[in-house]
Amino acid sequence: MDDVVEELVAALPEGVVTTDAAALEKYRHDWTHDAGAGTPRAAVRAETAEHVQETLRWATRHGVGVVPRGAGTSLSGGSMAVDGCVTLSLERMTAVEIDTAARVAVVEPGALNVDVKKAAAAEGLWYPPDPSSFEISSIGGNIATNAGGLCCVKYGVTADYVLGMDVVLADGTLVTLGGKRVKDVAGLSLLKLFVGSEGTLGVVTRAVLRLVPAQQPASTVVALFPTVAAAAAAVVELGRTVRASMVELMDQASINAVEDFRPMGLDRDAGALLIVQTDAPGAAREDEVAAVVAACELAGAEDVVATDDPEEGEMFVRARRVHFTALEQRGAVLPEDVGVPVPQLPELLARVEAIGRRHGVEIPVVAHAGDGNTHPAIVHDAADADSERRARLAFDEIMHAAIALGGTITGEHGVGRLKKECLEDQVGADVMDLNRRVKQALDPDGILNPGSFV
Amino acid sequence: MDDVVEELVAALPEGVVTTDAAALEKYRHDWTHDAGAGTPRAAVRAETAEHVQETLRWATRHGVGVVPRGAGTSLSGGSMAVDGCVTLSLERMTAVEIDTAARVAVVEPGALNVDVKKAAAAEGLWYPPDPSSFEISSIGGNIATNAGGLCCVKYGVTADYVLGMDVVLADGTLVTLGGKRVKDVAGLSLLKLFVGSEGTLGVVTRAVLRLVPAQQPASTVVALFPTVAAAAAAVVELGRTVRASMVELMDQASINAVEDFRPMGLDRDAGALLIVQTDAPGAAREDEVAAVVAACELAGAEDVVATDDPEEGEMFVRARRVHFTALEQRGAVLPEDVGVPVPQLPELLARVEAIGRRHGVEIPVVAHAGDGNTHPAIVHDAADADSERRARLAFDEIMHAAIALGGTITGEHGVGRLKKECLEDQVGADVMDLNRRVKQALDPDGILNPGSFV
Repeated sequence: MDDVVEELVAALPEGVVTTDAAALEKYRHDWTHDAGAGTPRAAVRAETAEHVQETLRWATRHGVGVVPRGAGTSLSGGSMAVDGCVTLSLERMTAVEIDTAARVAVVEPGALNVDVKKAAAAEGLWYPPDPSSFEISSIGGNIATNAGGLCCVKYGVTADYVLGMDVVLADGTLVTLGGKRVKDVAGLSLLKLFVGSEGTLGVVTRAVLRLVPAQQPASTVVALFPTVAAAAAAVVELGRTVRASMVELMDQASINAVEDFRPMGLDRDAGALLIVQTDAPGAAREDEVAAVVAACELAGAEDVVATDDPEEGEMFVRARRVHFTALEQRGAVLPEDVGVPVPQLPELLARVEAIGRRHGVEIPVVAHAGDGNTHPAIVHDAADADSERRARLAFDEIMHAAIALGGTITGEHGVGRLKKECLEDQVGADVMDLNRRVKQALDPDGILNPGSFV
Repeated sequence: MDDVVEELVAALPEGVVTTDAAALEKYRHDWTHDAGAGTPRAAVRAETAEHVQETLRWATRHGVGVVPRGAGTSLSGGSMAVDGCVTLSLERMTAVEIDTAARVAVVEPGALNVDVKKAAAAEGLWYPPDPSSFEISSIGGNIATNAGGLCCVKYGVTADYVLGMDVVLADGTLVTLGGKRVKDVAGLSLLKLFVGSEGTLGVVTRAVLRLVPAQQPASTVVALFPTVAAAAAAVVELGRTVRASMVELMDQASINAVEDFRPMGLDRDAGALLIVQTDAPGAAREDEVAAVVAACELAGAEDVVATDDPEEGEMFVRARRVHFTALEQRGAVLPEDVGVPVPQLPELLARVEAIGRRHGVEIPVVAHAGDGNTHPAIVHDAADADSERRARLAFDEIMHAAIALGGTITGEHGVGRLKKECLEDQVGADVMDLNRRVKQALDPDGILNPGSFV
């Protein structure tokens, strides 16, 4: 252990810092499993905001990069280790406290999304944001990526629920932004700037999250379409009149991947499947279900099933959620996260299919279709260098297809390290420059999450 | 006309720039009617983004401050003129275009909020944000202040609907942020940073606004309470189970001010009145109305009326909306905009009342109670220096009361010039420093809205 790390160890309570090789191994990768992951020189498992401040003061003093890390479920390499850096894990800061009168949760960053949901539910309240990873991803990571999910088509994304935060800046200063008030426009929207900043501007040590009354039970419509284009047309159509609480799409390859993994009797010949939920209260749900069914039929659905039984509905949602696991049985998965304006969905999916064909890789697609946010998953053989190369090419081309259609390279996973080369292609040189100017203003020494997108 | 202004006139088409004294008079004040308003050396009435770029390039070249201005309805002095500056009015850029498939409005900044609502409604769609000024305030101003309104308790504020913007930076560079896609986390959340920045970071020349399906007709509950505390307790109680689309509070002084101005038969003896609306679809509205009535009765309401008749409901909402006009009959009005966590509402209102008593000024209060955002209105005699002085003292003390209760000096009007002295008291020196660092990074010469909060 060198002198610099020795100083960090001495500054923090016993057991907070580790330099043990086996322990550090655990902090190298995130869910990206990228071969380029480095090894941290030490890992700090902060237990308090003061530990975070101490770590960042030390890092600034010595010019050491710090990679903040929640549960390590990033799919864009946002929390993978960098050689010579220190990983700052928030996994031990897991407190969740509910203020029912103010209808907020006060949460430490290492708490899992599901723990916030459970604590809120115990008081008859609800924390809506539901990334597919909600059972394993942390609130800190959700905030860092401005995580979306399935219900955000109606209920919005993480940023819409963050009312306040304590953030430790690169130099160790702790600032409090916002609070338990719902509306606050005093000064620049720094709170919103830190949300989605992927650990490049500061480290969240506490968040005040807005809660809403418990969700009503949802009704579910499942519709099979001959083509992805027909399913996408149904999405546009139903969006005109219904505020659905979930609009998920699975293409033919996804349906088949799920059927291979866990047979549920889904129609393998269908071009696409839509799972639509409405949680409109009481009898109004019937009207919305009817409107969804009508929109699907108008768009050419071949088979439409509606159910008010939450259990039956949940079965279909599970088929959707199991998707990623099902794909992992088929090989290594390079998960995409591109988004386009909703009307461009069919064209995007047509281009993804063509890209897969051209490079000889399977690319099943699921999508948060109501938001135009798609997850093409490039299945390849990680042990085969050529397969890996073709997968990377496809990955890159899919991002450029989204850009060409007025879309984004990332709807909810973040840019991280995997997509940073592509960011400027989307936003342009002037906006990249703005990103850098803000980064420079808030982290002049470049301590925070080095090697990330900015 | 000096050489510098001459250069600006020459750079822009005829009629875009004016230096006519009578014409400039119109650009001196905003709705703050502050005696400290300056006189601009010229006013640019931009017709295109290029005119905005040309103006800012010129301003940077000569170090001239630029005050951007929409409809001039700021209640915090955000768009009042500054001596020696140029006012950059966006009033001529009023185009509104609806893309029904992508469900967005593409809007120029000078378009009024009501015009966006109307254009959306013609396509069966809805632009929710509804500041009380919606018929007279511009979208550019709404974005600059991140305007709230009555329905934001359920539907969120302006920032929640801004998907994309063209922004001209201080040096004249035009950048495009976001677009027609619903979700986009590529790079820092610059889009959200510019929303609410009150013209201090850039000038919006085009916005892409999210639209949703048309709102259902609302049912209205009007409840009279013996005290403000009882009304506030009802707000907390109903918030547990009902997602009301409007939760407005009027205190006794407000009720009486409205009755004096336009008698509607409101009970002058009531301590407070709540107007609650629910727009839950179909039969579910009945359940929500019942829950609201129950919450009001539980909290001690003395008289509760519910109506499904939108006309009758609108009558009460009009009583609320006419409030500001009613107060203007009583004297000069210094409008406050402080917010607190919802449970702190009764304490805040008790303190406001005490402040009014202490300084001998009448301070009727209306509140977007469901969000904890209140508008105490300090009625005074502007011609009487002592009355004016006491009003200013009350204004200041109300802000500090909100801060002491974990609240904010501004929930939706912005800091502007009227509240800038108080901003640091709320956010602290470190956050003020962050504001300045971001401002410095984006507008290093301090061209944009000089004399505003940062």
